[in-house]
Amino acid sequence: MNQIKVFSPATVSNVACGFDVLGFPIDSIGDEMIVRKTKKKSLVISNVTGYSVPLDIDKNVSTIAAKKMIEQLKPDCGFDFNIKKNIIPGSGIGSSGSSASASVYAINKLLGSPLSEIEMVSYAMKGEVASSITEHADNVAPALMGGLVMVKSISPLEILKLPTPKDLYCFVINPKIEVKTSYSREILPKEVKLKSATKQVSTFGSFVHSLHTEDYELLGRSLNDYLIEKHRKKLIPLFDEIKGIALNNGALGCSISGSGPSVFALTKGIEKANEINLLVSDLYKTSGYDFSTYVSKISENGVRTLSI
Amino acid sequence: MNQIKVFSPATVSNVACGFDVLGFPIDSIGDEMIVRKTKKKSLVISNVTGYSVPLDIDKNVSTIAAKKMIEQLKPDCGFDFNIKKNIIPGSGIGSSGSSASASVYAINKLLGSPLSEIEMVSYAMKGEVASSITEHADNVAPALMGGLVMVKSISPLEILKLPTPKDLYCFVINPKIEVKTSYSREILPKEVKLKSATKQVSTFGSFVHSLHTEDYELLGRSLNDYLIEKHRKKLIPLFDEIKGIALNNGALGCSISGSGPSVFALTKGIEKANEINLLVSDLYKTSGYDFSTYVSKISENGVRTLSI
Repeated sequence: MNQIKVFSPATVSNVACGFDVLGFPIDSIGDEMIVRKTKKKSLVISNVTGYSVPLDIDKNVSTIAAKKMIEQLKPDCGFDFNIKKNIIPGSGIGSSGSSASASVYAINKLLGSPLSEIEMVSYAMKGEVASSITEHADNVAPALMGGLVMVKSISPLEILKLPTPKDLYCFVINPKIEVKTSYSREILPKEVKLKSATKQVSTFGSFVHSLHTEDYELLGRSLNDYLIEKHRKKLIPLFDEIKGIALNNGALGCSISGSGPSVFALTKGIEKANEINLLVSDLYKTSGYDFSTYVSKISENGVRTLSI
Repeated sequence: MNQIKVFSPATVSNVACGFDVLGFPIDSIGDEMIVRKTKKKSLVISNVTGYSVPLDIDKNVSTIAAKKMIEQLKPDCGFDFNIKKNIIPGSGIGSSGSSASASVYAINKLLGSPLSEIEMVSYAMKGEVASSITEHADNVAPALMGGLVMVKSISPLEILKLPTPKDLYCFVINPKIEVKTSYSREILPKEVKLKSATKQVSTFGSFVHSLHTEDYELLGRSLNDYLIEKHRKKLIPLFDEIKGIALNNGALGCSISGSGPSVFALTKGIEKANEINLLVSDLYKTSGYDFSTYVSKISENGVRTLSI
């Protein structure tokens, strides 16, 4: 195998109760990447289409992650990257995580799959650091593993795959304004009330319990955030209005995706997600902001091979 | 039925990762109580044996909880309480929670069980407030319901019963010094680092996941606390030594029970709990402190009727 074309999904992370801990892939949008072995032992980004990202291999998250991999794996070849960047950077749906996961997955396949899933996650994280300063895995882990994924710890890296209720669907609106992950992190307080921390702990615990018991109502009552949303929602146009529409139309919960500005809602069944999509799109059409929306199952599929 | 004798177990709460959220009953120690209907519509504590607790019905947690119940239920009788107080107050193993749960359970039975489990918990909590100032349910909920119990929220009161792995055993040492719950709460910081809060969230999430998957190793890796232990352990003689012995002898985890000074360790199987019991008891025998220890299954049984 000398060439591979892969699709790497966008991801919703944090998911209300799981700041820095939880994420899942969206099925309907992701970056595509063709990675080709080259004789010359170097990395080259030969082409980028779609949204603009750096061609410099030391600035592009795909190649930053790839560089760490080849430093370790020392393959007898180099790699050429042709990137179709479908996810707008700084959108809050794991744009850099998608690209980093794509390149790690592709190179691993091209080298005969020497890495385990967890090793792939650890390399993809190296790309993430470049865009968000802090090391985190709540985008790359679900992008690589699929399904609802929990980051138990970063050091040592430990990832848990949680059960995904079958009828769980997701609506996402991506307002086309850029919010830098690093800035969105800066506006967070360094300290939080012990009481709020305790609420977040119990809420996340009941969320995990609801997944195992497939209790959609409990899941809905667990999609709350007591730490982050109030700070970050200020960066998002019409956040309260979107959330109001979602909750008034049967969403199990609604909060910020990643570090924003994207907003997601979870629903039981696709119909409610579609309905919320129509209503929120109507609201946004009159707002003057450009935007995209997505409706997706909480997919069990992470990065995948499109063709060899 | 005019009289009932009940046993109400001691409880371990917080359980490392679940500050103010998690608890379970210990099978081998608890308060006993004989409650008798009286013609006169009043509450009387006619007798207390064992550890000393107030006879004044407005100061004893059993009758404080009972008073709230009868204000609401308006029964055509009063109640006489004969309390065998086996759990030392201020021990950190739910002494007041045990008594409050016993009286609520007994009165409910004597009145033909008008209350649901969750209603019983809410009345028993009223007794708890008297001893700890803050309203909390992580002792009374497991005392009344049995098993590993999670307090999802206090207002509205929502309690989840978590699955209890079959081989889960508990060792508890109760150093016989009193630590007032209210003081033990005072020494906690009002604010915690966002990073620590996030760690606690993921750790509790993985704990809940480990219960559902009956993964003892993961359970062990989830019995950590990032918020409370470091502050409260200062009140507990030889805490670090106890924890060292427990972890070096196969405990899944070891932390403070409730607000201390009791310390618990969880093990897979009773043998390790017994071994830790021997070693920690040896350590304490040479320390000069009086103490008791208990080894118990994580029991599915809460308060129960001993005789009618």
